[in-house]
Amino acid sequence: MGFKLYDEFNSYLAIPGPVTLHPRVLLALSRPVYGHRTEEFRRIIAECKELLKPLFGLRDGDVFILTGSGTCAMDAAVRTFVMPGDKVVSFVNGKFSERLAEIAESCGANVIRVEIEWGQAVKPELVAKVLDEHPDAKFVTLTHNETSTAVLNPLPDIAREVRKRSNAVIIADGITSVGGTWVKQEEWGVHVVIGGSQKCLGIPPGLGFVGLTREMLELLESGDLRPRAYYTNLKLYLESWKKEKDLPFTGSVSLFYALHESLKLIHEEGLDARFRRHHTMAEATRRGFVAMGLELLAERGYESPTLTAVKYPNGIKDREFRSLMARLGVLVAGGQARLKGKIFRVSHMNQVGPREVLMVLAVVELALRKLGFTPQRSGTEAALEFLERAWTL
Amino acid sequence: MGFKLYDEFNSYLAIPGPVTLHPRVLLALSRPVYGHRTEEFRRIIAECKELLKPLFGLRDGDVFILTGSGTCAMDAAVRTFVMPGDKVVSFVNGKFSERLAEIAESCGANVIRVEIEWGQAVKPELVAKVLDEHPDAKFVTLTHNETSTAVLNPLPDIAREVRKRSNAVIIADGITSVGGTWVKQEEWGVHVVIGGSQKCLGIPPGLGFVGLTREMLELLESGDLRPRAYYTNLKLYLESWKKEKDLPFTGSVSLFYALHESLKLIHEEGLDARFRRHHTMAEATRRGFVAMGLELLAERGYESPTLTAVKYPNGIKDREFRSLMARLGVLVAGGQARLKGKIFRVSHMNQVGPREVLMVLAVVELALRKLGFTPQRSGTEAALEFLERAWTL
Repeated sequence: MGFKLYDEFNSYLAIPGPVTLHPRVLLALSRPVYGHRTEEFRRIIAECKELLKPLFGLRDGDVFILTGSGTCAMDAAVRTFVMPGDKVVSFVNGKFSERLAEIAESCGANVIRVEIEWGQAVKPELVAKVLDEHPDAKFVTLTHNETSTAVLNPLPDIAREVRKRSNAVIIADGITSVGGTWVKQEEWGVHVVIGGSQKCLGIPPGLGFVGLTREMLELLESGDLRPRAYYTNLKLYLESWKKEKDLPFTGSVSLFYALHESLKLIHEEGLDARFRRHHTMAEATRRGFVAMGLELLAERGYESPTLTAVKYPNGIKDREFRSLMARLGVLVAGGQARLKGKIFRVSHMNQVGPREVLMVLAVVELALRKLGFTPQRSGTEAALEFLERAWTL
Repeated sequence: MGFKLYDEFNSYLAIPGPVTLHPRVLLALSRPVYGHRTEEFRRIIAECKELLKPLFGLRDGDVFILTGSGTCAMDAAVRTFVMPGDKVVSFVNGKFSERLAEIAESCGANVIRVEIEWGQAVKPELVAKVLDEHPDAKFVTLTHNETSTAVLNPLPDIAREVRKRSNAVIIADGITSVGGTWVKQEEWGVHVVIGGSQKCLGIPPGLGFVGLTREMLELLESGDLRPRAYYTNLKLYLESWKKEKDLPFTGSVSLFYALHESLKLIHEEGLDARFRRHHTMAEATRRGFVAMGLELLAERGYESPTLTAVKYPNGIKDREFRSLMARLGVLVAGGQARLKGKIFRVSHMNQVGPREVLMVLAVVELALRKLGFTPQRSGTEAALEFLERAWTL
């Protein structure tokens, strides 16, 4: 075995999920696995659901937990409700909003794709205009935080415009926003929100979440819906919960232990404090990159609080840069689809503070220097100056 | 529980031991504990001993492993050999060389303490002069790397001067050098070297090591020695090893698993590569602190490759600084005894690379700024510039 100081056992994950796990979560993962049809496990499921609800901004609604990836939860969020022939307006400004459109299409829906340049936000004015054209839309899909471009769409304003003009059900992908910034389904009137486990919730990939408002729960119970789905049919999850306070299918026991511990960590910090921290760390990260003379992808004013996408300067090759970063002990992500080779993405999700932000900026700086790009000024220094003022303990 | 982003579960240890463990070592620690009087455990002991020997520069000699702290190994190294009335010359330039003198005194020896200013090295010329005055010395004690001051004493030169002038047995504390820099007992003619587990060997505290040259093994076997010791009597360790390839007393099974894995990591990297890395990271660290306008404690030319001691600038209070560092997720050590409140110490031991060095410097910089000290220039930047040239992957 060739020695690497930093290998897959010893890497800092600055990819937008999975993120480096908190040691308390690692400990929870190493608990002995107990039976999944037990009082003990049902108690953990129930507590997880209760602790998840505030992260979705739900009191009267509920959150369902699926054993599967984020896409599993996306599939459930769409397939449970969207029937063949339904008109679905899909705002697409990145890979994951595109995936929502693809899933809707796989349900046989009539999908109107509204394409927005990747890196730009979905604007409320555009939403108003499109919904004026399609007042009969039964669904609107979009991402809250678009992971492929590091753009945070203004979901509350968008939801307001939709609701003014139609009865469309809003399905929003919150996979990289839930747990990292404010999501308020009930207050904003967003019917369905999707979450994932390995992002701001800080556990390994393998659990997906769907938050439903009371309105959607009632629709599910009404019997009017006949989803063409099985594993991703939320009706089965609701029935199992109502009847037995249980899951319809075997839950990934260890991941639930990890989720339970991570949610405890999240609530120990407090949601507002946690979300403010994410916004502060995002700002510090952006200031660092900008100071280095790099350009951000996201439209100004719509930058994601949980990850940042940076355009490569001339002469820096994606593969070389990321492989050097990995050898320096920090995994960062490249661009996806049309952005491949053009950007790199660093996350600042979950238990990320000044220590991690400063380290990532310094290592990026070292890697860029090694590849022949000398930063205009020190990004670490710029972040330090900001954090000195913005971060109190 | 009040939330802290960085708490005892989530801290980077830049104290000079224990250091942050490599995840492969954490995994080894979580192995089920097996019986300690088994063929399986004896195999692990034997392999650990073989893997340890090159770290002490031993081929014909042997390394004994004690379940105990570093001081346990110091006690064994001295008490096994030093008898009442023996003349011991102890070079004291820090807390740990002082401890060797205290242990020798506790054996009833006639200890000549040679005091050197803390922060200064033990110079071969001084050793020559003192040994000229005491050619009848039976022992010379000193530290190789003095952990309290971050000074590396020039052990090979010192040993040469001692051997020119006397038959004194040289007992050197290598607790923060063994595994972090070159130690060559046989080549240098250093009879006894002490090692610890939680420093450059990268496992938790709880194992101590004593490396003995063939000459010392023969002395132990000769029957001429009647140590007034039991748990720290190396004769018992040698007998048990010769008779049964075993330990005389119960070994800390989990720590041996961790040691075994850590030694594998060490040899995968290769000793020369590992030691060069330590020297490079030490240099990067020092350049960072000096760029900030801080003063180092160690005499120039004798700086430790495994930790750095930094004098506090005016106005920075030890307790405030270290408590802020802890809240920023990085534990650093203060000064000991007469250096209390005057210095802080950061280690760069074991699996430390650019990622860790840059992070520690950036966090120190943030803490100092928060406490009102603005660095002359960015220490991270200075370290980056050095690492860009000095560190190849």
